[in-house]
Amino acid sequence: MKIQCLTFAKRRRNAVIATGLIAILAGALTGILFAQGVRNDAKLLQEAQDAFKPLPQDAATTEYPVSPERVSLGRKLFFDPRISVDGVGSCVKCHPPALYGADGLAKSRGVNDKLMPRNAPTVLNVGLHFKIHWDGGRENVEGQAKMALLGIGFGNPDYATAMSRVRAIPGYTELFEKAFPGEANPVTEDNWGKAIGAYERTLITPSRFDEYLGGKAGTLSAQESRGLRTFLKTGCVQCHDGSGVGGGSFEKFGVVSEYWKETRSKEIDKGRFNITKDDADLYQFKVPSLRNVAMTAPYFHDGSVNSLHEAVRIMGKVQLGVDLTDRDVDEIVAFLGSLTGKLPENFATAPVLPPAPFDANRPASAK
Amino acid sequence: MKIQCLTFAKRRRNAVIATGLIAILAGALTGILFAQGVRNDAKLLQEAQDAFKPLPQDAATTEYPVSPERVSLGRKLFFDPRISVDGVGSCVKCHPPALYGADGLAKSRGVNDKLMPRNAPTVLNVGLHFKIHWDGGRENVEGQAKMALLGIGFGNPDYATAMSRVRAIPGYTELFEKAFPGEANPVTEDNWGKAIGAYERTLITPSRFDEYLGGKAGTLSAQESRGLRTFLKTGCVQCHDGSGVGGGSFEKFGVVSEYWKETRSKEIDKGRFNITKDDADLYQFKVPSLRNVAMTAPYFHDGSVNSLHEAVRIMGKVQLGVDLTDRDVDEIVAFLGSLTGKLPENFATAPVLPPAPFDANRPASAK
Repeated sequence: MKIQCLTFAKRRRNAVIATGLIAILAGALTGILFAQGVRNDAKLLQEAQDAFKPLPQDAATTEYPVSPERVSLGRKLFFDPRISVDGVGSCVKCHPPALYGADGLAKSRGVNDKLMPRNAPTVLNVGLHFKIHWDGGRENVEGQAKMALLGIGFGNPDYATAMSRVRAIPGYTELFEKAFPGEANPVTEDNWGKAIGAYERTLITPSRFDEYLGGKAGTLSAQESRGLRTFLKTGCVQCHDGSGVGGGSFEKFGVVSEYWKETRSKEIDKGRFNITKDDADLYQFKVPSLRNVAMTAPYFHDGSVNSLHEAVRIMGKVQLGVDLTDRDVDEIVAFLGSLTGKLPENFATAPVLPPAPFDANRPASAK
Repeated sequence: MKIQCLTFAKRRRNAVIATGLIAILAGALTGILFAQGVRNDAKLLQEAQDAFKPLPQDAATTEYPVSPERVSLGRKLFFDPRISVDGVGSCVKCHPPALYGADGLAKSRGVNDKLMPRNAPTVLNVGLHFKIHWDGGRENVEGQAKMALLGIGFGNPDYATAMSRVRAIPGYTELFEKAFPGEANPVTEDNWGKAIGAYERTLITPSRFDEYLGGKAGTLSAQESRGLRTFLKTGCVQCHDGSGVGGGSFEKFGVVSEYWKETRSKEIDKGRFNITKDDADLYQFKVPSLRNVAMTAPYFHDGSVNSLHEAVRIMGKVQLGVDLTDRDVDEIVAFLGSLTGKLPENFATAPVLPPAPFDANRPASAK
């Protein structure tokens, strides 16, 4: 009994000592891990800051300023269907605010229900892209807006017809005069492009990710941070970088393997090759910006993939030769969610257009 | 010289007296005219108050309430193109805010560019109309929204397909559950109609004319007042009355003479007769509300007339047998301008829709 008691006391003491030691070790380990975590967080932020840039307030340049008069006019023109040949086509038709400046379609519909050749990317932040269109066929938003007048989206036979439609709507001529002061005849297709371009250059959507880049702690969740880490480590960032997280270069779609085998695209699109006829441009596309990507399904140049998870998986496979795990994909998708900003007020809210019927110049000839 | 002076003095005195008398008479006359003017103004206001009613805050009824949950859901559905067969058709397609809830077209375009049979009236204040559609073919906004799912605007083959499109968009089922609490299976075509109807019942646009009806002096200009007087006196008010200034009855278009000779309509539309096959309904149409009419050209059931002046002139001629003078027409048009209200905030601003591509249930069968 005595021996038993002693043994018990000994055991108890030993247990207390052991527990104490474990607690100390655990505490030390926690401390080390915490310090390590802080260092990792700081390292991740540094890497992110090296690769990305916060969004600017607008995408104005010296050549393409965003004067209030231009932006106000451009906003009206953006929402106006009366410059198209069917009275339905407009910028906002393929870029409605309710769907975050995209239209949810694999390929948009132009005037008279004509199919567009590729998927409509969101207009949000587009002023920051280095070129416009998936194949870079337009130099800037001004050129895109101007040339759209004669394309599938508006269907005008020539610029003179398009401008006669603008002039037929009472009020627009004055607004052009205000937006382009000193010009004798400001209602031109170039100024149409400049006004809409100025408006689009204001459609910038800062998000939680910009706060993170600015150093605000706790703006990304643990899952989002892991997704960012994987995004950087795996190599997504090689192309999706800068303030747009993309939108800054052409790259071949299908570096490692043919993209259409994964996207199940109905047609094989040769991308920029169609413009340049240069073999080096085969399957080259503009790297899309990933800003607001969670809001703008479906994905890729032909809208062939509905799910963002699937799109991320495919990108890992065909661009980087990596089989991302489901967890990796989930985390990257979580990170991409941090790129969703708020709709700009001057985009979410429709302008009131000068009242006039579609064919305001009827019965007078458009000439 | 003396005589001359006397004569001059006399003349001067007489002139002073005459001037004084004239001034007194003029003053009295002004007073009389002023009193007369005040009486006329009061009489005009009284007549207006007898004929019209200020707009209510909303068009809710006991059967069709406007709970915040229903309105919020209905607003999203109103702006969503993904329930149509082509992913382009939607309520907002024919009723965009930028054009005051109408689309500027003579006849709207439904899915796959199909031509609608008649002109799209503005959705603003439509909840107050006694029937919906030009021929009264729909009993209320709820019925209209529901049946549009299978019409040219959405093109679904059946309600089950339409509802499968709603369910395929993550988030909508929950919103239906909130809007229709206690229902086991709330995603139905009836509830689609009720939600959109609830939203539309909130789209009310009080204007200066409502302030005038409320007795606020000086809200109508002299020209607008004269237009209102002519509107009342000539008989326009016989049909265009109530809070909608129309929207409350069927009337024959072309009481005095055949309408198409004035409107130059390409086709002769028999109106409500097409539904009832009753000769008494030949050329009967719902009297359109004149609320916001200055913002919603073109005019009439077939959008055959571009100008509001011309539309007013024609109405005088074919409905009342009156040749209104240009001045009468100008003044009536000025009065009609006082019926333009402000776009409701929940209409001008687009909702953010649950993100999903158009064919969210692809490749799964719609069934």
